[in-house]
Amino acid sequence: MPSRLEPAFSRRVPPGDSRERQVCDHCGFVDYVNPKVVVGAVCAWEERILLCRRSIEPRRGFWTLPAGFLEEGETLEEGVLREAREEAGADLELDALLGVYSVPRVSQVQLFYRARLRSPAVVVGEETLEVTLATWDEIPWDELAFPTVRWALGHYDQVRGVETFAPFSNPPGERGDLPR
Amino acid sequence: MPSRLEPAFSRRVPPGDSRERQVCDHCGFVDYVNPKVVVGAVCAWEERILLCRRSIEPRRGFWTLPAGFLEEGETLEEGVLREAREEAGADLELDALLGVYSVPRVSQVQLFYRARLRSPAVVVGEETLEVTLATWDEIPWDELAFPTVRWALGHYDQVRGVETFAPFSNPPGERGDLPR
Repeated sequence: MPSRLEPAFSRRVPPGDSRERQVCDHCGFVDYVNPKVVVGAVCAWEERILLCRRSIEPRRGFWTLPAGFLEEGETLEEGVLREAREEAGADLELDALLGVYSVPRVSQVQLFYRARLRSPAVVVGEETLEVTLATWDEIPWDELAFPTVRWALGHYDQVRGVETFAPFSNPPGERGDLPR
Repeated sequence: MPSRLEPAFSRRVPPGDSRERQVCDHCGFVDYVNPKVVVGAVCAWEERILLCRRSIEPRRGFWTLPAGFLEEGETLEEGVLREAREEAGADLELDALLGVYSVPRVSQVQLFYRARLRSPAVVVGEETLEVTLATWDEIPWDELAFPTVRWALGHYDQVRGVETFAPFSNPPGERGDLPR
């Protein structure tokens, strides 16, 4: 359907609310915006970790863990299994919640699980240029897409062999800002 | 500013996307909708638990834990402290992540923390009819507002005295449906 009007939103406090929200000047639609949830996993096959090279912006060409936005009507566990399947054809067994990170710069909450691959058969999926099962020494630390990927990998390393642990939150002082 | 048009959204797959989204027929605005994050806490003062009776729908008049939607630009910890302050004038010290629940029926992810009150001075805040510091035996189990409130309280009880634990997820088979 062709567009008839340009988008035009103003920041106003809707009736009964206490914060300014974006309200459509044409029709009064209130665009409640809240942080979004990203779910991902550190997926191990024996001593190797599944990494995906991003084919899309932001951070095209950089390496990431399988992760993406939770969709409507999904549980967290369903979301992380879907993302690993979509991005790398990976079949996971979730083990533990590893990290619960806040990234207020982009209004995201990111939850990473510790997971095992049921098979080393991974494929290049959507939004991915390349997949690899990297040994720890092969992880391209300088070419990771996001701070939370680095955090999740570091936290994974800290709880090797530990069965019961509290999930990590942001490293002290870190709010997820990208390197300058 | 007065409205000039009625809201009119159609479900369409936007370019480059794989799912149907709500798209404004007037201006092409894509309303990406993803699950929202609710943060809350089981707040203890000695052996008592802070409960708030809701003054708003849904579930007006029923009892809840201090909890609410995470706002843009907030960390999880900031959000839970804000909600406790707004709803009960409560000043918290967060202790551990207690529960991470999915409620796909309403597309929410709910994170509950175990927390201590720094003071028993609580007040009736926004969206609240009444606050109480209830002993365990005084908790009105049949008048709790939401299944996740019951889950968080039950899980709190399961880790009394336990310092390090993995946060709970949904009880087996429970998707957060309200009682019929």
